[in-house]
Amino acid sequence: MTFVNKNKIVNDPVHGFVSISYPIVFDLIEHPYFQRLRHIRQLGLTYLVYPGANHTRFQHAIGAMHLMETAISVLRAKGNNISDEEAEAASVAILLHDIGHGPFSHSLEYSIVQNTDHETIGKCFMHELNREFNGRLTLAIDIIENRYKKLFLHQLVSGQLDMDRMDYLRRDSFFSGVTEGAIGSERIIKMLNVVNDELVVEAKGIYSIEKFLIARRLMYWQVYLHKTVVAADQLLTNLLNRARELSLNGEDLWCSPAFAYFLRNNITEATFSLGKASLHTSEALKNFALLDDSDIMVAAKQWINHHDYVLSTLSDMLVNRKLPRVEMRTQPYSDVEIESKILNFGELHPALRDYGKFFVATGSVSNNAYRPSEESIKILYNNGQLLDVTEASDVLNAKALLQDVRKFFICYPKQ
Amino acid sequence: MTFVNKNKIVNDPVHGFVSISYPIVFDLIEHPYFQRLRHIRQLGLTYLVYPGANHTRFQHAIGAMHLMETAISVLRAKGNNISDEEAEAASVAILLHDIGHGPFSHSLEYSIVQNTDHETIGKCFMHELNREFNGRLTLAIDIIENRYKKLFLHQLVSGQLDMDRMDYLRRDSFFSGVTEGAIGSERIIKMLNVVNDELVVEAKGIYSIEKFLIARRLMYWQVYLHKTVVAADQLLTNLLNRARELSLNGEDLWCSPAFAYFLRNNITEATFSLGKASLHTSEALKNFALLDDSDIMVAAKQWINHHDYVLSTLSDMLVNRKLPRVEMRTQPYSDVEIESKILNFGELHPALRDYGKFFVATGSVSNNAYRPSEESIKILYNNGQLLDVTEASDVLNAKALLQDVRKFFICYPKQ
Amino acid sequence: MTFVNKNKIVNDPVHGFVSISYPIVFDLIEHPYFQRLRHIRQLGLTYLVYPGANHTRFQHAIGAMHLMETAISVLRAKGNNISDEEAEAASVAILLHDIGHGPFSHSLEYSIVQNTDHETIGKCFMHELNREFNGRLTLAIDIIENRYKKLFLHQLVSGQLDMDRMDYLRRDSFFSGVTEGAIGSERIIKMLNVVNDELVVEAKGIYSIEKFLIARRLMYWQVYLHKTVVAADQLLTNLLNRARELSLNGEDLWCSPAFAYFLRNNITEATFSLGKASLHTSEALKNFALLDDSDIMVAAKQWINHHDYVLSTLSDMLVNRKLPRVEMRTQPYSDVEIESKILNFGELHPALRDYGKFFVATGSVSNNAYRPSEESIKILYNNGQLLDVTEASDVLNAKALLQDVRKFFICYPKQ
Amino acid sequence: MTFVNKNKIVNDPVHGFVSISYPIVFDLIEHPYFQRLRHIRQLGLTYLVYPGANHTRFQHAIGAMHLMETAISVLRAKGNNISDEEAEAASVAILLHDIGHGPFSHSLEYSIVQNTDHETIGKCFMHELNREFNGRLTLAIDIIENRYKKLFLHQLVSGQLDMDRMDYLRRDSFFSGVTEGAIGSERIIKMLNVVNDELVVEAKGIYSIEKFLIARRLMYWQVYLHKTVVAADQLLTNLLNRARELSLNGEDLWCSPAFAYFLRNNITEATFSLGKASLHTSEALKNFALLDDSDIMVAAKQWINHHDYVLSTLSDMLVNRKLPRVEMRTQPYSDVEIESKILNFGELHPALRDYGKFFVATGSVSNNAYRPSEESIKILYNNGQLLDVTEASDVLNAKALLQDVRKFFICYPKQ
Repeated sequence: MTFVNKNKIVNDPVHGFVSISYPIVFDLIEHPYFQRLRHIRQLGLTYLVYPGANHTRFQHAIGAMHLMETAISVLRAKGNNISDEEAEAASVAILLHDIGHGPFSHSLEYSIVQNTDHETIGKCFMHELNREFNGRLTLAIDIIENRYKKLFLHQLVSGQLDMDRMDYLRRDSFFSGVTEGAIGSERIIKMLNVVNDELVVEAKGIYSIEKFLIARRLMYWQVYLHKTVVAADQLLTNLLNRARELSLNGEDLWCSPAFAYFLRNNITEATFSLGKASLHTSEALKNFALLDDSDIMVAAKQWINHHDYVLSTLSDMLVNRKLPRVEMRTQPYSDVEIESKILNFGELHPALRDYGKFFVATGSVSNNAYRPSEESIKILYNNGQLLDVTEASDVLNAKALLQDVRKFFICYPKQ
Repeated sequence: MTFVNKNKIVNDPVHGFVSISYPIVFDLIEHPYFQRLRHIRQLGLTYLVYPGANHTRFQHAIGAMHLMETAISVLRAKGNNISDEEAEAASVAILLHDIGHGPFSHSLEYSIVQNTDHETIGKCFMHELNREFNGRLTLAIDIIENRYKKLFLHQLVSGQLDMDRMDYLRRDSFFSGVTEGAIGSERIIKMLNVVNDELVVEAKGIYSIEKFLIARRLMYWQVYLHKTVVAADQLLTNLLNRARELSLNGEDLWCSPAFAYFLRNNITEATFSLGKASLHTSEALKNFALLDDSDIMVAAKQWINHHDYVLSTLSDMLVNRKLPRVEMRTQPYSDVEIESKILNFGELHPALRDYGKFFVATGSVSNNAYRPSEESIKILYNNGQLLDVTEASDVLNAKALLQDVRKFFICYPKQ
Repeated sequence: MTFVNKNKIVNDPVHGFVSISYPIVFDLIEHPYFQRLRHIRQLGLTYLVYPGANHTRFQHAIGAMHLMETAISVLRAKGNNISDEEAEAASVAILLHDIGHGPFSHSLEYSIVQNTDHETIGKCFMHELNREFNGRLTLAIDIIENRYKKLFLHQLVSGQLDMDRMDYLRRDSFFSGVTEGAIGSERIIKMLNVVNDELVVEAKGIYSIEKFLIARRLMYWQVYLHKTVVAADQLLTNLLNRARELSLNGEDLWCSPAFAYFLRNNITEATFSLGKASLHTSEALKNFALLDDSDIMVAAKQWINHHDYVLSTLSDMLVNRKLPRVEMRTQPYSDVEIESKILNFGELHPALRDYGKFFVATGSVSNNAYRPSEESIKILYNNGQLLDVTEASDVLNAKALLQDVRKFFICYPKQ
Repeated sequence: MTFVNKNKIVNDPVHGFVSISYPIVFDLIEHPYFQRLRHIRQLGLTYLVYPGANHTRFQHAIGAMHLMETAISVLRAKGNNISDEEAEAASVAILLHDIGHGPFSHSLEYSIVQNTDHETIGKCFMHELNREFNGRLTLAIDIIENRYKKLFLHQLVSGQLDMDRMDYLRRDSFFSGVTEGAIGSERIIKMLNVVNDELVVEAKGIYSIEKFLIARRLMYWQVYLHKTVVAADQLLTNLLNRARELSLNGEDLWCSPAFAYFLRNNITEATFSLGKASLHTSEALKNFALLDDSDIMVAAKQWINHHDYVLSTLSDMLVNRKLPRVEMRTQPYSDVEIESKILNFGELHPALRDYGKFFVATGSVSNNAYRPSEESIKILYNNGQLLDVTEASDVLNAKALLQDVRKFFICYPKQ
């Protein structure tokens, strides 16, 4: 039984009325693989710090698609040749660019899907969808995987100034209420152009780019890597690791079957590797497609009553927002410091003495405002000259922009 | 193990920085009963129509509390005597005014908690909290239940111009992207005053009140009673009813224990009635406090594979957003019309022929812009005269405002 | 010597980036007749009450043109046939619709250009421009003067839902800071359609229309007819009348030559009447085209030192914002009441005793939310039925909407 | 005859409702010296490039006062001792900080008030007002002139993070429509604190400060030093210089008496120097207080018909927005280049051949994001450490921030 919804305008609090221009985009949005994104928060546990940040990957993907259409029309108006087929493929590509995200990716990728990033899983999804859509996604996938001759189309999907960032920086700023993170995506897009099949920014857009880099950095430290968010992520990672440990030891943990699949099996990047259209990959993908935020939260709620004291304590901390303390600094924490926190924890909670590693977490987060090793932002001058933004901008410290800023954290329960 | 978060400023995309002024408010927010509101969407299934509408009852309650502090300070500045104790109680009262909401209240109240409205359950929660807080919520509860002498404090919590509406109309407009629904809460609050212990609006605020009434009506028909939202609510109600029917017949349905409790037991308003601090009430409340949106959605996802074809079909429709068609009109649908839709459905889906009542839904929704039978909006003129807004406003049709506008709908699967 | 500015994008705080699509529109904007609108405030003396309201008729005309392009593209997308020539003419028409406004029109029209409304003068300007542009404005003028067969094009320029109102209500709300007056012009425009060459609104836009009518009314009473604004207008009218009286009596008043022309001559509607391309008309138009807000304000500043005590007092009141008191009510002021104010004034200011009529002003202002005698707002239902909005809306009081709301005022200096 | 307006709330589109807390602030706003700011645009001729930029120094001064009250209350809440008298004086100080601005300051200061900056004139105004207000402004003046012991009060009025900048960056961004220039003034103010009587920013505000510096830079290059704005300023400077030259040669130029005073006399910084309460100073001040934007524009309109061809051409260029071409670059223009432009101009316009210096303008504009030579932005860490922002921020290029960025321009009429 299928039901068709003919409504092709979406009300988006960030961009206003968003039209869906291509039938295939509409059909992809209707697909269960995409609809599941309605239940996956864009920013994972960030809503525990910024209560407004409940927006989903569904909204973001549609917003990015909207900006892609704007960008394509700006580039066409400047005389760049983009065929209708390419325009459609670019919309499809950006729509699907995040399809591989699971719930709370930051924690998931370090626990139950071991070191498997969302891009690997995303490719899996896209190839599966391409089979269902009889190869009509091929050009979009080529653009995403950077096999298509017009590099700028790939850059619009995945690059320093891609429509992904143009949307998420504004959207995350809007919903978190960190208004300072807002970027001038409208203006930046108006300044885009293409030279030698590469995306460039016209010179008068230089200040907007500087501001974009600074705003992005602000969002990183103030939202994405906010220390309490980091602490919540660590807590969830430890909770999932404990759950997996118990499951692998044969312990029965109440949770949804799809979630159980990942707790009981050894799912790694290899599982999702392309080419292997094996039964194993297909099963993992099918189960992954059923996971969303609610599977994790519902399970954690039940585990508060589980007899394993480690699991129940961590679950209570997550569900009832008893988040760990967290310290952050530019120097790593020494083994002595970490040991001391673990010892201290053990003294305060004798029953959990042997499980300090699930409660005291350490690690680092890093961000660089700009990573030209991958790709650079090129500024186009009226005389045709092209300069990297680090050369073009006098105020930004090129060296600093190029370097990772890394901060080390240590989390531990209070008291 | 408890952990204290000392952060007392909340970033709210609607109101900006919100400060938490009273320690008791902070402690209440930390309580699991309140934290659960983080996982209950303010507008239930509305996010299936307006993808931005993922905001939660948690945010709304804090926003309403913020407006309460503003209102109290406006009234004090106009010379109205409000003690610190009363001010704190008003903040507590508005913070807790929606504590009784469960997930997807519209559907829940017509299915698994039969005809039990959120206010009854809310009282239950508040009295329980009052015990935990050693009676410190008594004044707040008196204000909510309208037993306190200063009527205007009750009106600020629950009245024509209460801080609940002042917040939710702006918030729902903000997150849904229906910008036209935005009201001038800042200005309305500045125009409030008190005469004879009753809330009044100063005459120069009359146009803001007119606009408030019209904007509220717009939000009702464009968002709250949007026909596709109504269809989704009906779908969920039918799904829950089918699940309950199966459960009561001894069928085993995978779902969280708290959810199962409501499927397997007969929970009615009586269960939550005050005075009865019986084991039964306490058990129902404990289970209710564990329910949130994720319990329902996780269960529905599993039920797609249930052997009962009615349940699995309804679950698939909900989870994968295959929403019913819906028609709406000012005349009721006759038995003949309904029968015909059911027959038609049966012909298209022979396997579901006997279960038409779960797929074809009919009923009505209604809204009145203003219901002075309960209480009126009083306009205060410079000469001291007080007029009801229907008399004070020339442009609003008093009769129309007073009458319910009722619309009848019929929903049925497409094809 | 001419200089061409090739910049064809205007930054508008209300609508964002506004593109200028037609060369003729660009040329018209460059014309001195249009450039003068840069120095004429959209809301006259309203900035004395709302300090933000310094926006000009220049910005408004460009904003309205921008909305016209949006409306044309919406109507075309719905299958309505609009030729490129018609689209251009509609843009030109809305751009020029206010070209006849002088500085502080409300006061001017009751004093130095006696009872000549801006539309009469506007026609004069347009015919003059049409000569300069070799007849290329003919279609635009036909649309404005409602001689063109496609009525809806005229309605988009001048009708209940014209682009003039769509822009000015949002713009005046934006700049005055009366945020409640904001209308959903984006949504209303999306709901427009054409039936039998007439503009209609699709049924699902009914709530937006209701809100538009209420917001418009709010703007009238809260901004346009704000009693202090009325008082300032009266003050300026009286000041201009006194200046004219003195001038006609041979008194020499320092002011710009163009301003002097209107003080010393008897300029009436007849002066600007079409057909009369007489020297007299042409001279009046040429002088009118030189007038802007600064001519009036600079003169008033000097007149503070004029030996005529009436003139100097009124000038001081205007320039240094010593505005009269004003009372407003629904009943007219009787001759006795007025006489009493004048007498009282005379007693307080013996030197001005004989000039009370310049200091005590009375009159009325009126507004109706909707005037279907001229033209109605038609709502289009899915079944093709058309209803007037007063029939389609249940909440709006049709009678009240149809009637003028008239308020009477009396202004007099304080003390 | 005086008239009192009791309304003490101002509607500000930028900050919302602004209350006027102190009677003396109200009285100062009513004073003609302050009322004149209603007719002086905050950004001079910028409205010729950004048509929305008609906002006035009046609005800005009130907005800055509003932010001052917010800052004072934030600092008090953090335990800093600020007496009521100091709080009032800080409000008065910021209100009056720009009182010395005349119309189109950028041009004026290089022409008719030779090299007299607005601060010198401002002091003159403030001492005059202090006499009128019987010494009640003394503390405010001490704060402005940095004689008061609590340095941070001066810094709030005039420093790297003063309320002047906090308001004007947001306001200029709002009205010009250059939304990217918006700064998070609300958040920055919340992060302020005082250490050793100096203003500091708490460490978690570092990203807001970085963004503030970058946004400020963006506003400089995109708005304040926009090349077309620079060209307009040069045009006006040349126009004023020509008018002055003619006046000093005995030529009679129509203009307002106050304007004439500055054309015919030699007014320099010495004229306004303090201590010299001479007749000359007092006369200059009195005339200056009568000048506003309209005096200049009205005169220029008349001068279009003046027999001096240089004056009439420049006037026509200004009034009818026939702005010069302008080129900008980081290298100065050589004498040869300038000569060549002048020669070229002379060939195209033989009648103006000898007056090239009035049509070809050259010079430089400069901006530095941060000038710690004057004063630094100090970041306060949790451990009490204080660092200059250039040390605290890794991404900002300290050297670049410290250096002036200077750009050279050349303007010349087109064709």
